Amino acid sequence: MTLAVMAEQSIDQLCVNTIRTLSIDAVQKANSGHPGAPMGMAPVVYTLWLKELNYDPKDPMHPNRDRFVLSCGHASMLLYSILHLAGVSNIDAHDQPAPGEAVSLDDIKNFRQVDGRCPGHPEYKWTTGVETTTGPLGQGYANSVGMAIAGQWLAKHFNREGFELFNYNVYALGGDGCMMEGITSEAASMAGFLRLPNLCWIYDSNRITIEGHTDLTFGEDVGTRFMAYGWEVIRVPDANDLERVGQALKMFKNHHDRPTLIIVDSHIAYGSPNKHDTAGAHGEPLGEEEVKLTKRNLGFPEDKSFYIPDGVTEHLRSAMAERGGKSRDQWQKMFADYKTKYPELHAELSCLLKRELPAGWDKGLPTFPADAKGLATRESSAKVLNALAANYPWLIGGAADLAPSTKTRLTFDGAGDFNATNYGGRNFHFGIREHAMAAVLNGMAASKIRPYGSGFLIFIDYLKPSLRLSAIMELPVIYVFTHDSIGVGEDGPTHQPIEQLASLRAMPGIITIRPADANEVVEAWKVTAQVKHEPVVLALTRQALPTLDRTKYASAAGLAQGAYILHDAPGGKPDYILIATGSEVALALGAAEELAREGMNGRVVSMPSWELFAKQDQAYQDKVLPPDVVHRVAVEMGSTFGWERYVGQKGKIIGMHSFGASAPLKDLLKKFHFTQENVVNTVKEMLRK
Amino acid sequence: MTLAVMAEQSIDQLCVNTIRTLSIDAVQKANSGHPGAPMGMAPVVYTLWLKELNYDPKDPMHPNRDRFVLSCGHASMLLYSILHLAGVSNIDAHDQPAPGEAVSLDDIKNFRQVDGRCPGHPEYKWTTGVETTTGPLGQGYANSVGMAIAGQWLAKHFNREGFELFNYNVYALGGDGCMMEGITSEAASMAGFLRLPNLCWIYDSNRITIEGHTDLTFGEDVGTRFMAYGWEVIRVPDANDLERVGQALKMFKNHHDRPTLIIVDSHIAYGSPNKHDTAGAHGEPLGEEEVKLTKRNLGFPEDKSFYIPDGVTEHLRSAMAERGGKSRDQWQKMFADYKTKYPELHAELSCLLKRELPAGWDKGLPTFPADAKGLATRESSAKVLNALAANYPWLIGGAADLAPSTKTRLTFDGAGDFNATNYGGRNFHFGIREHAMAAVLNGMAASKIRPYGSGFLIFIDYLKPSLRLSAIMELPVIYVFTHDSIGVGEDGPTHQPIEQLASLRAMPGIITIRPADANEVVEAWKVTAQVKHEPVVLALTRQALPTLDRTKYASAAGLAQGAYILHDAPGGKPDYILIATGSEVALALGAAEELAREGMNGRVVSMPSWELFAKQDQAYQDKVLPPDVVHRVAVEMGSTFGWERYVGQKGKIIGMHSFGASAPLKDLLKKFHFTQENVVNTVKEMLRK
Repeated sequence: MTLAVMAEQSIDQLCVNTIRTLSIDAVQKANSGHPGAPMGMAPVVYTLWLKELNYDPKDPMHPNRDRFVLSCGHASMLLYSILHLAGVSNIDAHDQPAPGEAVSLDDIKNFRQVDGRCPGHPEYKWTTGVETTTGPLGQGYANSVGMAIAGQWLAKHFNREGFELFNYNVYALGGDGCMMEGITSEAASMAGFLRLPNLCWIYDSNRITIEGHTDLTFGEDVGTRFMAYGWEVIRVPDANDLERVGQALKMFKNHHDRPTLIIVDSHIAYGSPNKHDTAGAHGEPLGEEEVKLTKRNLGFPEDKSFYIPDGVTEHLRSAMAERGGKSRDQWQKMFADYKTKYPELHAELSCLLKRELPAGWDKGLPTFPADAKGLATRESSAKVLNALAANYPWLIGGAADLAPSTKTRLTFDGAGDFNATNYGGRNFHFGIREHAMAAVLNGMAASKIRPYGSGFLIFIDYLKPSLRLSAIMELPVIYVFTHDSIGVGEDGPTHQPIEQLASLRAMPGIITIRPADANEVVEAWKVTAQVKHEPVVLALTRQALPTLDRTKYASAAGLAQGAYILHDAPGGKPDYILIATGSEVALALGAAEELAREGMNGRVVSMPSWELFAKQDQAYQDKVLPPDVVHRVAVEMGSTFGWERYVGQKGKIIGMHSFGASAPLKDLLKKFHFTQENVVNTVKEMLRK
Repeated sequence: MTLAVMAEQSIDQLCVNTIRTLSIDAVQKANSGHPGAPMGMAPVVYTLWLKELNYDPKDPMHPNRDRFVLSCGHASMLLYSILHLAGVSNIDAHDQPAPGEAVSLDDIKNFRQVDGRCPGHPEYKWTTGVETTTGPLGQGYANSVGMAIAGQWLAKHFNREGFELFNYNVYALGGDGCMMEGITSEAASMAGFLRLPNLCWIYDSNRITIEGHTDLTFGEDVGTRFMAYGWEVIRVPDANDLERVGQALKMFKNHHDRPTLIIVDSHIAYGSPNKHDTAGAHGEPLGEEEVKLTKRNLGFPEDKSFYIPDGVTEHLRSAMAERGGKSRDQWQKMFADYKTKYPELHAELSCLLKRELPAGWDKGLPTFPADAKGLATRESSAKVLNALAANYPWLIGGAADLAPSTKTRLTFDGAGDFNATNYGGRNFHFGIREHAMAAVLNGMAASKIRPYGSGFLIFIDYLKPSLRLSAIMELPVIYVFTHDSIGVGEDGPTHQPIEQLASLRAMPGIITIRPADANEVVEAWKVTAQVKHEPVVLALTRQALPTLDRTKYASAAGLAQGAYILHDAPGGKPDYILIATGSEVALALGAAEELAREGMNGRVVSMPSWELFAKQDQAYQDKVLPPDVVHRVAVEMGSTFGWERYVGQKGKIIGMHSFGASAPLKDLLKKFHFTQENVVNTVKEMLRK
């Protein structure tokens, strides 16, 4: 390191060192954070934003902006610094430009403080300019694949000759941690297969992680691995070589048939005389003294904090306005012409960008006649999904290699498969890569497409970290998860969800719906379609369920309230209440009828969604579950955990207390006591007490 | 396919076709299962068992046996067939040989039936000879890395000159699904880094998955990818070329400095004239007619089911007895001599193999004096773990790149690091590969080592599928997970567990312990050490907690009961009960003291483990939480979900209703109402009603 005094530094050096010093000052002031990666990668991020990123800081939600994703979210000060220096504006509630800065210098000074704009890890929708919430490693890389997919799909769907509405690139920066996570491998394999030309990952190879040098555990040849996935691989041997970094970014743009990985050899905490290349610089402040030494070393005044030399912001902002600002203005003009020439597509895109449903979205949704034999809710879901998707062009998705089982394929004419030769297809083959699937869905949803993914409910565990991020980001991703209980049968305990419903219900910010029959499935999809801010998990059966006679029982429309009185005792005065979800509702009805014949009149409550029920006012909740009716039995083929909320301490829960077993379902129902006899006896025993 | 009539088939062909026909018959009879992979890979598995596997069917738990892991667990009939044909014996409760077959022909006829020995996916401990439970893809591959690690560690620890007690190899067979899962990438990267020479993965490249041909989504060059990980890669272009398969297996044995991947091009449902190479053969019976056509094609009698030609079992059994049987007998002799020469090591190994604790295991465990400032439970855990590990030589483990934060490093002399140049080290650097870490721990535990892994509690989501398998397999893996609440502070919502405790409690078969202070940590480790059949999750804090004055409050030994009366109202007659866990126990005590000063006398229950409490008899549970005391408040910095079980419908729960936030902890405690003032007011309000 032989850096000149400030007066001798080029404007580029000044900009890069400003990012470094803002980062170390913010971490030092907060006495918490990760200074090392921002110091190492400042030159790369700066070069990207200065030279390539097609982004107008005045319109940070511009639909065709290039995306920059910080997959190594702990390096958040790198992002906050560049957002500030680039002068990214605020947006309003409608994603339109608004006065004020997304990240002011005061916000940076308030790094990691309560309710501040610069939280420890970047948070989508909380800080304008943050394209996705990152921190859990690998997620940002995988999200970026979803954004690149969205870019290709939007281009194919909306672009017309002379109207290249979508041609954005997606850049994602990650580190050694991201590279080690399995989700990254899955996402890279998927991106390579799809030959996404608009995707560029930058790999900060600083070879330092929390435990020390990567020599402790990470010896693979990352470049060769990515070539095996079908990526272009470019190396930059020195992060500080701005010219080489710029060339690498240009090379990415010149490849049109595959994604690009740029491997950048860097030094963590570059500029710090004593912490440079050490694990100590990863996640702790440098310390007051070292901050001073670093500033001296970088040629910056030691006694100034949060110092931005003259010309720095102007330099970056003018370059970005020249490229991104002009490009955005041209786009706006083009979009106005598009409205004239393609009014329907224009309306569609406007609708998509506002996360609104298209007009007539619910036209032709099926209703199902009463049928004792019935059909599996995965089957009825297939019909509803296809009817809905026919009206809802940007409802697109697929399965983690389980579409024939989860019945999520769009089968109508023109739906097509999304692949490298058809980026307009609506059916996705995510492969046996559940985790990447969910993260890709997040990236697609952040691009305003309405995506769904599917699998067996047991495998929700494989993608949980990404589902959690759907919830944190308030992204309306749809998870269609079937085989939702021991109803799986012969595949046995490894494939039978037990605790999965409980663990979904315990998570904030998501809606889980487990419909009881085909008509509840219709209502479940209606609710799901209208949700704007929450991921929804639809838990569906493998096995057939009777389609209830709604002339005899209450309308399935009650699903929207989360729980409803499906069948009641005469006069609405039940001796007991049976609460059931999904496949157990018919069992509860049968038991109630048997009990009624013996003079015990009960109420059956169908409770497809705890979260929707919790949103209802207390009066409705008390109407469905009157506090004075303490004899309550819940029936669900899942962990009993949590059901005390609704049955109370005097109630009973018929559920699972162990893992499942491999056998035909009829035998499992007996083995685990999901029989009408057991439900009846449980109620009787309770009433006797 | 031009197969000869039966009379012209070699014994090898007969054996291979017997595996095929047993598999298709079992699936057909069950009308459920996966015939395709067993048909394709029968020749490879047969050759491995016949020619290489050092395994004595008469002693299937022999400590130095070669391991065969079926990572593609859905191909379970392949495993059951070979276990039957090889004549694998039963074992008794002490893992010793016992009369009877592990898998009889009747068991095979009872495939996928209730309580049968041949469940849909192979289940460890349920069917002798099944080395690990598989089905969720990628898990078996990753488990095999743990078994190979265990082999190396055991060799280094126990082998002495002239006494090569451990030199086993581990073979794992997986398919395209396993190859796509991220966990496989993590595990392969780890195995390559560790240069495990005793690990051989066989990859059934049949290029068919449930949705169809792998051309739909999987285009990577798997061989190149594995070379990038540092593996030897061998190709077998035809699974039916027994000679080439045999050569490949020999080549594996000739490589002594890295793991080996054998890529076998195969045909799913080989032998079936109409389903060969089709996705339809993956997970469904062939159908009666196709079963007949296949048998005819394979030269087997169409009208016989579960038919084993003369000589087949004898051929395989004699080969295995000749190699594995002799080898096992020699080992037994060697082990008897070892007892004379190395009595202490012999005793240690005997103890290990029985999953018993070494004598004096709890000698020198610390106790902690009362201290208002106290220390984080991760810190006290570090001291206890180090004291325990010093007495417990095969307690080994590490972290997913977080040891400096989770404080799980063994720091005493000689502990060392486990790596390619020191397979005797006790500290593991698993890298930022949580999922593979957990699966590797399962493989180590299945090899009778006592392993621990560590990370931040939020990242338990990244490894959930493997933790679930620890529970299903009843493996006593120890999960040391710190940063267990919003106590994480500035790192914010992506790093703050909310629903994780609830989701652990909802899972059958695991024990979660969240100790309240340093002395509860000691007790938590004591309980953990003695557990034999369950994984344990220790949830520990980042932040300091006061060490409670146990002369004033009850002994921390109460932790073993899961919950205990820490502080009581005079005369044991509380007006209310405060129930708290971990970091919230001190808060509850403070509130109770304040309330007592105002004349409201309460009980404080420390409830570190729901599962341990649930194991106590009703009398004890009622003593701690008397049913007549209905004024109860639970305090825990996690999701409130599930707490109704203990507070009842009249109780209150002070917990989290949203994701967390990034800020210093003191500010978060206010923001989310974990203050003494709020606890006091909540109790008061409840008592007023």
